[in-house]
Amino acid sequence: MKNPSQQNYISQVSIDCVIFGYYERQLKVLIPKINFKGDFWALPSGFVYQDEDIDQAAERILRDRTGIQDIYLEQFRVFGKASRTNKPFLDELIAFNFDKLNVKNEAQQEYDWFTKRFISIGYYALVDINKVVPQKTDLDESIEWYSIHELPRMIMDHSDIVNEALKTLQSHLDEKINAFNLLPETFTMKEVQEVYEAICEKTFVRTNFQKMILELNVLERLEKKFTGAANKAPYLYRFKK
Amino acid sequence: MKNPSQQNYISQVSIDCVIFGYYERQLKVLIPKINFKGDFWALPSGFVYQDEDIDQAAERILRDRTGIQDIYLEQFRVFGKASRTNKPFLDELIAFNFDKLNVKNEAQQEYDWFTKRFISIGYYALVDINKVVPQKTDLDESIEWYSIHELPRMIMDHSDIVNEALKTLQSHLDEKINAFNLLPETFTMKEVQEVYEAICEKTFVRTNFQKMILELNVLERLEKKFTGAANKAPYLYRFKK
Repeated sequence: MKNPSQQNYISQVSIDCVIFGYYERQLKVLIPKINFKGDFWALPSGFVYQDEDIDQAAERILRDRTGIQDIYLEQFRVFGKASRTNKPFLDELIAFNFDKLNVKNEAQQEYDWFTKRFISIGYYALVDINKVVPQKTDLDESIEWYSIHELPRMIMDHSDIVNEALKTLQSHLDEKINAFNLLPETFTMKEVQEVYEAICEKTFVRTNFQKMILELNVLERLEKKFTGAANKAPYLYRFKK
Repeated sequence: MKNPSQQNYISQVSIDCVIFGYYERQLKVLIPKINFKGDFWALPSGFVYQDEDIDQAAERILRDRTGIQDIYLEQFRVFGKASRTNKPFLDELIAFNFDKLNVKNEAQQEYDWFTKRFISIGYYALVDINKVVPQKTDLDESIEWYSIHELPRMIMDHSDIVNEALKTLQSHLDEKINAFNLLPETFTMKEVQEVYEAICEKTFVRTNFQKMILELNVLERLEKKFTGAANKAPYLYRFKK
C-alpha cells in the first residue's frame, strides 16, 4: 500500500466503481474482499490525480481492475454525506496492513489523509465477464464476481452505491443496450429479452417485450436466408447504424 | 470576500447550482454577473464544509441565493476535467476584488486555494420566479434571470453545466413535474402543456400531448361542477395523492 498523500491526489475525493458483469443470463458485480480480520468487502476504488480528468481516473481504475481497455462507463451519482467515513475502522485497517505489508517504520499519522470524509463519485460499467481478468491490489485478499442477489457485506455506504448504480442501469438500459456490447453482431429477440430480464430483475411477456423493443426503433430485422428446409429459425436482428 | 481556506471547507470541491425559473410560460436561469472588469457571469456556487453533507451544502447555497426554503433540487452531474480551472483569470479576479473590498493587507497567496482545479458537483432546481428574491454576494455586481435562449457569457465550463442541467431537466420532467410545484392545486391540460413546451423547447400537438400525459397515470380528472350554463370550461386535473 502506497501512501496516498505522497501521490499528488486531490484530497477527500474518491471514485467508486460498480462493475456489472453479464454472464449466463445473470447480472453480477465485481467486488474485492479487503485484507483485514473479519470479512469485509469494498468496491474497487481510487483517487484522482491533480492533472487527471475524473473520467480518466475512473477509466484507469477500471482498467487496473479488469485488465480490459475501452470499457463503457458512466458516472451516475456523488456520495457525499458527512457521516460516510468510518475513522476507527479505517485506522484499524491501516494498522492491520502496515503489519502485513512490512512497512512498520513509516509514520502512521501520514495516513490521516486516508481516514477523512471522502466525497465519492460513483461510476458504473457493464461488461462481458468472459473478457475480464479480475486484478487484486495489495489491499485485497481476493476479488470475485457476486450475484446481484447475493452481495457480500460491504463497508460504509458501498451497498447503497451498488443499489443506486443498479437503478441507473435499469432506467437507462434502453439508451445504453448497444453501448454495453452485451449482444453479438446479430441476435435473436429472445437474447435481447434475456439481457433485459437479468438486469431488470423481472420477467417479460414475450409479445409485450417484442413490441416495446421494436418501438425503441433501434433494431433492424435481417432477412431470413433461404435454406430449403422448413424455416423455423427465429428472426435475427442487429443495431441500426 | 472571506478567505475560503480559513473556513474549514473541503478543498478542491465546489457546488454549482443551475436555478431554473418558470414564469409567463418561459424558462429562465438565475445567474450572477461577477464584479470584474469586462462582462463575465458565473453560476451561483459554493463549497462544502467538512461536517456538511453535499446535499445540505447545495440547499444552503440555493437558500442564500433565492431567499426561499424547501427548494426541490437534485444533483445531476460532476464536472471534473483537469483543464477546468483558469488560474490567470481567477488571480486577476481576486486581485480586482481585493482592491474593491479594501482587504489589501491580507496576503494574496492565501487565495491559492481558490485558483486550483475544482471538482464541481452540479445541482439543479426549478422554482416559481414569483417566490424568489435573488440575492447578491460581495463578489457579484448583479444577479438576474436570463432566458435559456439568451444566456450571457459565462466563465470556464459554466455554459456546459447549464446545458447538462437542461438536458437532465427535460429527460426527467415526467417524473418530476409534481415535485417542482409549478402548477397550482388544480390545473387544466393546457397549463400542463405550457410547462412542457417552455421546458422542452418545442410545441406539442394538443391531442398527442394529452394522450402522453394521461398515460403517465399521475393525474386525476375532477368532475365538472354543474353551473346551469352551457359548460364549456375545460376539465380540471390534479396530481394523484
